[in-house]
This record gives sequence, C-alpha cells and structure tokens, in this order.
Amino acid sequence: MNAVVARTRNRTLPEQLPDLNPYHIPSLPELFSMIIVMEQGATPEQIKHMIERVEAFGLKAHPIQGTERTVIAAIGEKRSETKEALASGPGVESVMPILAPYKVASREVKKEPTQVVVRDLKVGAGSIGIMAGPCSVESKDQILACAHAVKKAGATALRGGAFKPRTSPYAFQGMKEEGLKLLALAREQTGLAIVTEVMSTEEVPLVAAYADVLQVGARNMQNYRLLEAVGKTDRAVLLKRGPSATMEELLLAAEYILNEGNPNVMLCERGIRTFEAHTRFTLPLASVPYLHHKTHLPVVIDPSHGTGHTYLVPDMAAAAVAAGADGLILEVHPDPEKALSDGYQSLNFPQFEETMTKCRAVATALGKKL
Amino acid sequence: MNAVVARTRNRTLPEQLPDLNPYHIPSLPELFSMIIVMEQGATPEQIKHMIERVEAFGLKAHPIQGTERTVIAAIGEKRSETKEALASGPGVESVMPILAPYKVASREVKKEPTQVVVRDLKVGAGSIGIMAGPCSVESKDQILACAHAVKKAGATALRGGAFKPRTSPYAFQGMKEEGLKLLALAREQTGLAIVTEVMSTEEVPLVAAYADVLQVGARNMQNYRLLEAVGKTDRAVLLKRGPSATMEELLLAAEYILNEGNPNVMLCERGIRTFEAHTRFTLPLASVPYLHHKTHLPVVIDPSHGTGHTYLVPDMAAAAVAAGADGLILEVHPDPEKALSDGYQSLNFPQFEETMTKCRAVATALGKKL
Amino acid sequence: MNAVVARTRNRTLPEQLPDLNPYHIPSLPELFSMIIVMEQGATPEQIKHMIERVEAFGLKAHPIQGTERTVIAAIGEKRSETKEALASGPGVESVMPILAPYKVASREVKKEPTQVVVRDLKVGAGSIGIMAGPCSVESKDQILACAHAVKKAGATALRGGAFKPRTSPYAFQGMKEEGLKLLALAREQTGLAIVTEVMSTEEVPLVAAYADVLQVGARNMQNYRLLEAVGKTDRAVLLKRGPSATMEELLLAAEYILNEGNPNVMLCERGIRTFEAHTRFTLPLASVPYLHHKTHLPVVIDPSHGTGHTYLVPDMAAAAVAAGADGLILEVHPDPEKALSDGYQSLNFPQFEETMTKCRAVATALGKKL
Amino acid sequence: MNAVVARTRNRTLPEQLPDLNPYHIPSLPELFSMIIVMEQGATPEQIKHMIERVEAFGLKAHPIQGTERTVIAAIGEKRSETKEALASGPGVESVMPILAPYKVASREVKKEPTQVVVRDLKVGAGSIGIMAGPCSVESKDQILACAHAVKKAGATALRGGAFKPRTSPYAFQGMKEEGLKLLALAREQTGLAIVTEVMSTEEVPLVAAYADVLQVGARNMQNYRLLEAVGKTDRAVLLKRGPSATMEELLLAAEYILNEGNPNVMLCERGIRTFEAHTRFTLPLASVPYLHHKTHLPVVIDPSHGTGHTYLVPDMAAAAVAAGADGLILEVHPDPEKALSDGYQSLNFPQFEETMTKCRAVATALGKKL
Repeated sequence: MNAVVARTRNRTLPEQLPDLNPYHIPSLPELFSMIIVMEQGATPEQIKHMIERVEAFGLKAHPIQGTERTVIAAIGEKRSETKEALASGPGVESVMPILAPYKVASREVKKEPTQVVVRDLKVGAGSIGIMAGPCSVESKDQILACAHAVKKAGATALRGGAFKPRTSPYAFQGMKEEGLKLLALAREQTGLAIVTEVMSTEEVPLVAAYADVLQVGARNMQNYRLLEAVGKTDRAVLLKRGPSATMEELLLAAEYILNEGNPNVMLCERGIRTFEAHTRFTLPLASVPYLHHKTHLPVVIDPSHGTGHTYLVPDMAAAAVAAGADGLILEVHPDPEKALSDGYQSLNFPQFEETMTKCRAVATALGKKL
Repeated sequence: MNAVVARTRNRTLPEQLPDLNPYHIPSLPELFSMIIVMEQGATPEQIKHMIERVEAFGLKAHPIQGTERTVIAAIGEKRSETKEALASGPGVESVMPILAPYKVASREVKKEPTQVVVRDLKVGAGSIGIMAGPCSVESKDQILACAHAVKKAGATALRGGAFKPRTSPYAFQGMKEEGLKLLALAREQTGLAIVTEVMSTEEVPLVAAYADVLQVGARNMQNYRLLEAVGKTDRAVLLKRGPSATMEELLLAAEYILNEGNPNVMLCERGIRTFEAHTRFTLPLASVPYLHHKTHLPVVIDPSHGTGHTYLVPDMAAAAVAAGADGLILEVHPDPEKALSDGYQSLNFPQFEETMTKCRAVATALGKKL
Repeated sequence: MNAVVARTRNRTLPEQLPDLNPYHIPSLPELFSMIIVMEQGATPEQIKHMIERVEAFGLKAHPIQGTERTVIAAIGEKRSETKEALASGPGVESVMPILAPYKVASREVKKEPTQVVVRDLKVGAGSIGIMAGPCSVESKDQILACAHAVKKAGATALRGGAFKPRTSPYAFQGMKEEGLKLLALAREQTGLAIVTEVMSTEEVPLVAAYADVLQVGARNMQNYRLLEAVGKTDRAVLLKRGPSATMEELLLAAEYILNEGNPNVMLCERGIRTFEAHTRFTLPLASVPYLHHKTHLPVVIDPSHGTGHTYLVPDMAAAAVAAGADGLILEVHPDPEKALSDGYQSLNFPQFEETMTKCRAVATALGKKL
Repeated sequence: MNAVVARTRNRTLPEQLPDLNPYHIPSLPELFSMIIVMEQGATPEQIKHMIERVEAFGLKAHPIQGTERTVIAAIGEKRSETKEALASGPGVESVMPILAPYKVASREVKKEPTQVVVRDLKVGAGSIGIMAGPCSVESKDQILACAHAVKKAGATALRGGAFKPRTSPYAFQGMKEEGLKLLALAREQTGLAIVTEVMSTEEVPLVAAYADVLQVGARNMQNYRLLEAVGKTDRAVLLKRGPSATMEELLLAAEYILNEGNPNVMLCERGIRTFEAHTRFTLPLASVPYLHHKTHLPVVIDPSHGTGHTYLVPDMAAAAVAAGADGLILEVHPDPEKALSDGYQSLNFPQFEETMTKCRAVATALGKKL
C-alpha cells in the first residue's frame, strides 16, 4: 500500500498491530480425509491399485469391504488436488471429501465471532451495522443529501458506487475518482464510514485511498487476483456472494483475502440466480444461520439486490435481522425515479426511515444492537 | 361430500352459508391484453396477417410502428389459448401478456386479505397461525404427546401425516386411516385443528372426514384432479408450492380450488429447488410480501422443509414472521433421532418452545397476534 | 385390469407371459451401506452412542479415527429410513449413503439394455423409436392428417393428448374420451402405436383401454398413486421427468412402476427448470449417457417441451440422437399457428420431415436404426 | 499492444486491415422501444406523469387504454438507463424492453456468420474447429505429448492453462510464464494454434505475447476491465459463459470486446449451474441454435467442463456437433489419473481419438467440415 492509503487510515485496531495476520499460519497442514467409493463390479486389482495410489499420496488407506461394494477411507494431510487425482482412478465411482477445504474462515479454527469495526460501523458479535446510500454517486448534492438522511435514520456507513460494473458497455460507468472524492467529502461532513466497490487490481490503491470498506462485487467474487489485492490492503472488505456461488466457494473466496493477512472480511448474501423471475434474484436468508454455523466472519444481507423491487425491501430487511444478520446494505436515493441506476430497487428517505424503524423493533425484540 | 364429512364439519362460517362460493363469478369475462412483438425484418404482409389474426379472436389490434420494428397491442376479452396461438404466427418474435392469468385469487378482485379460520386456528389478516406436529403419525403415544406439547407452547393446529408421499417405494408409507383416527383423538383431547395431507382423489372423502385442513403436498401442486376434488369439499386447504413452481403457477393452482367454490385456501411456501446443496431446498421469504401484493390469500411458511436442518429452523421461523407470514407449519417430534421420517429437520419439544418464544417476540414487535 | 383393456391388448410379449414381473423380487434385501461423518468436536460418548445406534439397526459399524474427526462406516441390509434416523443423532455432521436407493431399475441388477416394443415402435437396444403428433387431439381431421403425415415421414407411434393437464383452469382441457376414440381410429388407419397421457388413477382403465403407451406427465412424476396404477396395467409407460426432479427421484419413480410388475418403462427427459428464460426449459442431453450408465431402461428425449420453440427443435432432435437417445417424442401439427395448445413449439409437416431426415443421417452415421 | 505481441502476430486477416474494427460504429444510435405497463388502479395523473417522463427522455409516448389497464408504448433512440429510471415511476407495474440491448454482436447488424481463423484453426461458417489439450500445462513432456497426440487425431489448436483460476487458494495455481513458453514450443513443433486463459488485465500483454487465442474464463465473464483489455489486443478471444449468465449477459460481455475493435470473438458454452448434481454443470446445447439465431459469432462447446465426467464427454461432444456447434474445446491428458487438475473430466489419447471419430461421422453426415 502506498503513502496515500496510510494517510487516510482510520480503523486502527491496536491489539492487532503486532500481528497483522492472526489467521495466516503457513505451517498449518491441510488436514485431510475422504472416502473413495468403488464401483460395484470393481476388481480386487482395481481396489489394490487405489490403495496404492492413496498411500502414494502419503495418506493412510482403510479399505472397508461392504456387502455390495468396497469403500476406501483415506486419512492424513494432503493438498487439495488429491481428490481430483483419485476420482479418475479405475473402478472408482466417486470420491467424497470429509473436511471442508477452507480453514482460516472456519468456525473450527476460531470459535468466537469476528466483529468488523470501521469508525462507528460495527458488524457482528451482537451489533448490526447499517450501510446505506445510492447505487451510484451521481452528484455532490445527491451524495451529501443521502449521507445526511441515512445518518439521521441510524446508518453508520455510506455506500455509493464510483466505479460501476455494468452489464452493458453502453450503460453509465460511474463518476470514478470524482465520485470517490465526493464520498470522502460526505464522510468529512457526517463521520460515516465509506463503502465502495473496487473492480480491478489497478484500481485498488486509488479506491483504498478514499474508502473505509472495499466492496468486491458479486461478478468479481472469483476474480482471484482482485481478492489477493484487497487482501494486501488494510481496509475492511465486503465480499459479495456470486449469484451462482456455493457457500463453499464463497468461503474459499474469503480465504483468498484472509490468507493475505487481512482479517476484516464481511460476507454479503445478495441473492442467487434461480428460476424465479418475479424477483431479480432469490434471497436465501438461511445463508445467515448456516454461515454462522460454519464461519466466524460476520454476515451482511443486501435486500435491495436480493429482491430487485423497492416494495419488497422493508419486509426482507426485517426478516434478515430476525434471521440473525450482522449487517444490512441498502440502496437509498433522494428520488429513485430519477436515479441513474437501480432506481427500481432503491428506497427513498421516508421508506428508509420506516425500514429502520421496523428493523430496530425486531433487533430490540431479539436482544441485538442496531 | 358424503354424510361422514358433514357430521365432522366444524368450521361453520355462517356469514358465508348463503353463498358458499363468493369468488366464483362464471360470468366474469377473462379480460385480456397483450403485446405482439414482430421481428425486425417482419414484412408488411406478416404484420397485416397478425392484425387479422388478432381481430379474428375478437380483440382490438393497435399496431405501433417503431424505429426498428413494429409491435401490435391486442386488447379485449379472450381465453388463455390466444397467446399460444399467436406466438407461432409468421414474423412474430414474442408475445408478452399484460394481465395475470389468475383472477379469483387476485388482489385486484378482492382488496382485503382473507383470513382462514378453523377452530382456534386463525391465519391471515394480522393473525399468525401455528401448525405443528410430527412429519408422520407413528403411534398413539407419539401423536398425543406432540399434540399436548405443541398446544402448550402456543400452536392452534396439529400437523401429522397419515398418508405419506415417499420418494422411494420402499420407504414407510404412513399409518393411513389408523393415523387419521389418532389425529381425531388428539383433536378430541386438545381442541387443536387437524392438518393432514391428502394424496389422491379417492382418499379425499376419507381424509376430509377426519381432517380440518386438507394439505395438498408440493409434489401434487399441479395434480389438477386433486385440486378440483379438494375444491369441492368444505374443508380449508393448505396448498404447498411445488419446488419448481413459479408464483403464477402457484396462484393458478389455487385458482383450480377457488374455482370449485372453496374460498378457504392457504398458500404455503416450502422452498424451491436451486443449485444450493447446503440446505435441502432454498427458502425464498420474499414470496411473502410478493404474494401479499398479488393475492388476498394468506401465506404460510414451512421452515422445516424449507431448510431441511433442525438447527436452521428457529432463525428462519422468526425471519418468516418478520417477513409478514400469516402462519407457520413446523415439524415437531418427541425424539427426532427416532422419527420414522424427517427427523433431521424436526424440532424437539424444548426447541419448539424456544422457537415459539422467538417468533412471538418478533410478532409482538411488529404488532401481530401469535 | 378389466375386460376392455384385455380386448385391446396388442403388444403381447410371449416370452414374458410366464412371469409378468421379471424384476419384482420381494425377497431381495435392500443392501445398504453409508458413512456417518461426526462433527470435529464430537465427544467419545457421542461416537459410542452412534455406534450403538448403527448396531441397533442391525448394521455393522466400522469407526475410523481421522486426524481431525471420526467417521463411522455402517454396512449391512437395511430399509431406507435408516439414513434419516441417524442424521439427527448427537454430534453427527452428515450421513452419506453409498448405495443408490433404487434397485430394479438399476444397471447393476440387469446389465443388458431393455427394449420396449409396442406394435412397430421399438425403443432401446440400438433402435430409436419416433413418437410424433399434436399436443392435443382437436378434431378427426386434425388427428388423422397428423397420423398419416408422421407415419409417412418415419414415426412408428402417434402422440396426442385427450386429457390435458393445464396450468390454468380456464384453458382447454382436452377432448377426453372422444379424443381417445379418435386416436384409436388413427391407429386403425395407420397401425401406429398410440401414446397418450393419463392424469389420474380413475382415468387409468379408460385410457388403457385405448392407448398402447400410457404417458405419465412431468407434473405427475411423483404422483405415487398414479405410478402404482399404471404399474398394474399391461401397457408400456412413458414416464416424464419432473422439471425439478433429480435423476435419483426419476429412477425411484420408475421403481414404483416396475415394482408393481410392469417392466415396460421408458424414461423421458423433457427439460428442467433453471434460470434460463430464452428457452421454456433447459434440456440437459447429458441425461442420456448418464441414465444409460445407471439403468437398463430406455431413454426418450422431448425436444419440443425441452426447448419450447419450434426453431430449436430440429437441431436438438439431431443432438439427442447423437447423444444416444433411444427415442424422440415430438409435437407435430398441420397448422401450428392454429393449434389449441403448444403451437409455438410444434413442427409443421415439412419441418417434421426435415427433422427426420437430419436425425436419420445422424443415426446412420452412428450405426443406429431409425 | 507492445512490440512483443506484434512480433508473434500470426493470424493476419488482410481483408480486415484497412478497418480493424468493422463493427464499431460509434455514431450508431441505440434504437429503443419499450412498453410501460401501468397498474390496474393507476390514476389518470400517474398515467399523465409517466407520459411526460417518457417524453422527457426524448421518446415518443403512445398510451393505449385497455379494458383493465393502460400501457404506454415508448419509442425512439435512448440510452439503456431509461428502462431502470422509468420502472420506479408511480403507478408503474413493469417495463418491458423490446429491443435487445446488444448491437454489434447481433445478427440484425451482420447477417452472415463470422468465421474466426487463427493458423489452421477455423471456427464457424461450416467449419468445426477442435481445441484440445490438458487443463494445466504441467511439464514439457506432458504438453508436447498432448500436442502431438491431439494434432494426430485432428485438432487444430492446443489448449492448456498456464495461469489457473482455482477455487481454493491452496490449489495448484499453474506454471505461469514457464507454461506459456512450453505452449509456444509445442506450437513450434506442431503448428497448432495456442489457446490459453488470461486472468487479469496485467497479464494480458504477457499472455498475448505467447498465445493465439486468449481465453476469458467463466468466472471472469463479467470482469469488464479484462474484457476491455482483451478487446484492445489483436488476438482472437474465446469468451466462456459464466455458469449463471443469461444469453443476454453473454452477448453483452462479447459486446465489451467487440466494442474495443476486436472482431474475433468466439462464444463458449461450458454449462450452467442448476440443481443437478450428477453432472458438474448442466450443459444446455440449445444455446447453439439459439445463439446462431441471435448472433453472427461462432459458438464453441466445452463438454469437459459441461459434464465434469470423462465417460459423458464423447456422447456430448457428438451431440454438440449435431446441434450445430462451430467448435469444441476438450480436455485431454496423457494420464488423467495423474493430472494436477481436472483429471476426472479429461480424455486420455485413445478416448480422444474415439471422440474425434464419432464427431467426424456426425459432422460429415450433416455436411460440415471437421
């Protein structure tokens, strides 16, 4: 990171300074076990061959003779290619891994939940952080009006896109650095933390110089170079789930960031692509308790993208809080009808206030801070 | 309906007796409009041909000449085949319907929400009804223990399967009539309304003789003969969404029931099939506010099937309440580990109590009765 | 089956008469094995408890101590509830079955492919059978014209719906028995085998009295009573995959039919529901080689429903043949623009001939009969 | 592009030299039309407001009064934000666009199919190009053996990954520049064109210096900066469909490349993510005729990733040819069991030869060159 970033650094977490990467333990072996299921007609030679293959990987092989077929349990420490290599062996029907392939993100490695703290934004461990603002930064008036309105209603972070990933090359691509400067100005006036998307490795230093939280968008969830680049900054990261990513892929993407030494990762569920067409995406709130079971990282819900329709956002925001979400990211615009992007899923100011009131009632009923 | 059913009738709704079918208005024409989009290179002859085709259906045709292509707006009263017939015309790129094909279920036909009332179970219009009990009726002891436990915790209906639809022909198929009798006994002891599945038209009279609410399972959502048969009874119906059904298909399935004169239909979201494998199905809670927007019928959520894992049920039950659900249906078993079916997604009694406490807190915070 | 059915019987397979149910072996035990994966923190007591549970089911338990967690291999003969029961045990993370739950349909039980023969229709074991005709029987002229046209182009069976399952209760529901009579008339004139859908158990005797092949539609794939009813007839069955059914569910549905003693089951892939909207369904042709690997039953492809657009049908029909399909079922109509249903995906007569020419070229190139 | 790239340039297409970007017509206005459907209860004021909004965008508004509701047809030339902006207007139910948002890729702009020619690889317009080779370049021996084997069996391009996008940060990440050098060596020995993936903008110059075809992987299909970067090179591009991308998104991604002046884009269908778990992805071959209908760009199928299992690849390769594919990309490895990646879906040399024989038979039967 360059000097510009250092100057704007603001979420100093002193207790982490001695070791900026508490999770990165390069010497941790990847513990490993799996079950190799042989076909019903597998010959003794094939079984013997597979046992030798397992042992050649340095694993212990436990063959188990069933009434219909044989399975081989393989146990030890090994790299993740092993499964792929064994699956194409002769007489093998399938290989079932038993350990999750992610480690640092795992609840098994760190029991207590991680709380990401950036200025007044607190996400996780009983605190629900609200990030709100327009899809795109469009003008000074627009972003400052949003910042003051969302702060007044209880948000602690301002979201707003300066670099916009657009499906069409002919669509508005964002105000770029000019937008970043306006976000910084809004922070100066309100104290809100700034959340904004970074789309490519080259843009990381520039965006990190202005933002408090780097958002990795759903389309870039598996852009591994970008994950590595944000993992090398000292900015918190909001990692959005890709619309067809599995939970395991999401956690492995987080692992790319954590593995570079950046512990401040928030996972964001923003909806998956299914056959449903009445909503823009299908928002699976069960991701919240599932991820809480598997990982210590906080889970943020995006009801705006997750539904794609303004009128569905307030109920789904309240539902996300009831499901245990650690944060919400919401699109808010002074005049959604005139928004340059995503107007159809943005709340106006009164709608945002009403949503906050509803969410706060649910949070309070469940003993959470919002 | 036969005499047996009449004797066990219990949810008399006197104000509806003069007209058992307030929604069925056979003279209501199916109002109709659609847009026919012609291909870019469509010839004047093709356009003329399609205008004549539209008019042959008794619709008015409004051709609109665009800069690149022509569209024809067709307006009038017509049956639903029209769209299909026109879509294969020469030079036609696509046909877009503008009116929803369901009518009686539509919010446009009846503005105020429908409340289904069966004994003490009240579902809709501000009341959240809780239906709880085991997947299958397994024994007298089991079902009576369940009935007393769920009643004590606040449920007003007992669910329990006597006829079980099982993916495998080798799996436990239910206690059948013996199970129905045990359900009736549980009702006698507790006053709980009985919810149980009916799987085929032949079984409707038998099941209706014992049950208060007939459940049409997800696999039968488009079993039209069965929909017609339950539509002819005076029992309330819980209609489960098929795992790949669209909202429109669900509402049209409800329409089959309503169209027979049975107004007491509850729609049940129980999860859809997606690429996600960490949950049994993906539970899209946005169905709740969406359906409330489109229909006056109450919406029930099934977090047990919708997640497939006991540990995810309490949070998703609370989230469903926050999303505005009018009812919950939950699997509860005295000893899930020994359940003959669905043990992995059933709550035990203490877990059910805890879930109820959580849901009641959310409902109260949002001004609902539970 | 009643006398009417007996009179119209036509596909006598003498070598099967002594035993009408060659696959049904009630004494065959359900062989069984599975792996129970314990959570990482599972206690010795929990592991001991699960071993006892496994043994209480009459299975042998093989615990395997890994570096991070313990797995228990369970082997023996047991009914299919076992998995469900064990999955909710204390300290259990997951249970992975190792044997497919279907038996009679399995390639492991019968190695050689099954050929279904009905009149001149031959499906499987190197012969590709073509079933073609309109979505619905609409009139005498229409069905006879279709029958003669498809026969001339090479089809050996005539498809046509008399009882139509329609998403909307307001749509055309079919000509019912009148339609069946017209189909029988078409058979009389052309010798084509008749394929038509049966929608409910009550209709089975009537439809079986006229039809050669009973089609179970996609919406009814898991209507278990209907599967049992067609399994009790001596008619061949075309079982369509439900749009969200897994391969295992499809094979288990076939098992319901086979298990009643009817060996003449054809599996039909007609597309699955996915996020894709440019086709009506997504047609996964990999189902063909996959099913050939798993089952001896023949596999038929329906490119009409599988794509939903006439212009995609010829290429996908040819692709299905190249993928190894044992049969095709195609919608053909004299004037698709005027069809009462499915006109947008029907071929007219010249298009059908062209499709047949293309398919025959591919079949010949690959050494198949069509 | 730098000098290194210029030196290795090899697919000079003289007739295109005068204008390297035949499709890029910056002055082409984005023609536009759409239908705004008002809610049933929309007031005259709301309708008037929307007409004014449409006209404020410089579009002509054609209101159409239906029996139940009003629709407004909007016609003119406008940028793509218009739809989004209008959809959130008061009383608006939905907005339906009528024109496809892509232009340069559209069949409407260029009627004749594009053939991409790179050395001996010819893809499109009647020629089927075969790209084959290992998932990853692993060693000199491995890649040279592959190159000679696939050339002998009829491939005209060698695929092989040097920079590997891996789901897990702990998996093998490729040989990087060393791998590129080995690919160049293989080209020197065999004359095969080289196809290899580029994962980030920084790597574009390096990869383009060695490769003939730049592959943009499925995970990067919407990495817009990367699309722009490969669009600025003079290398052909193989653009893989993201596993949850719609056809429209794929074509818009191609548009990003074409729009930079690079006309040599091949679209690659490699399977989508659905609920199916018996294959790694679901391979929808209907993409081939659909894309041929919509775009002039050639369509390549990847049966290796599309199925994820070696035993399914030969049949699906033949099916792809029958569906009209312009090219195939196939994973081939000398010893799949020992491959460092994707061994379970790789063909060995005899399997590849057999696949080629099958595909050639189908291609010949259909009058195509392979």
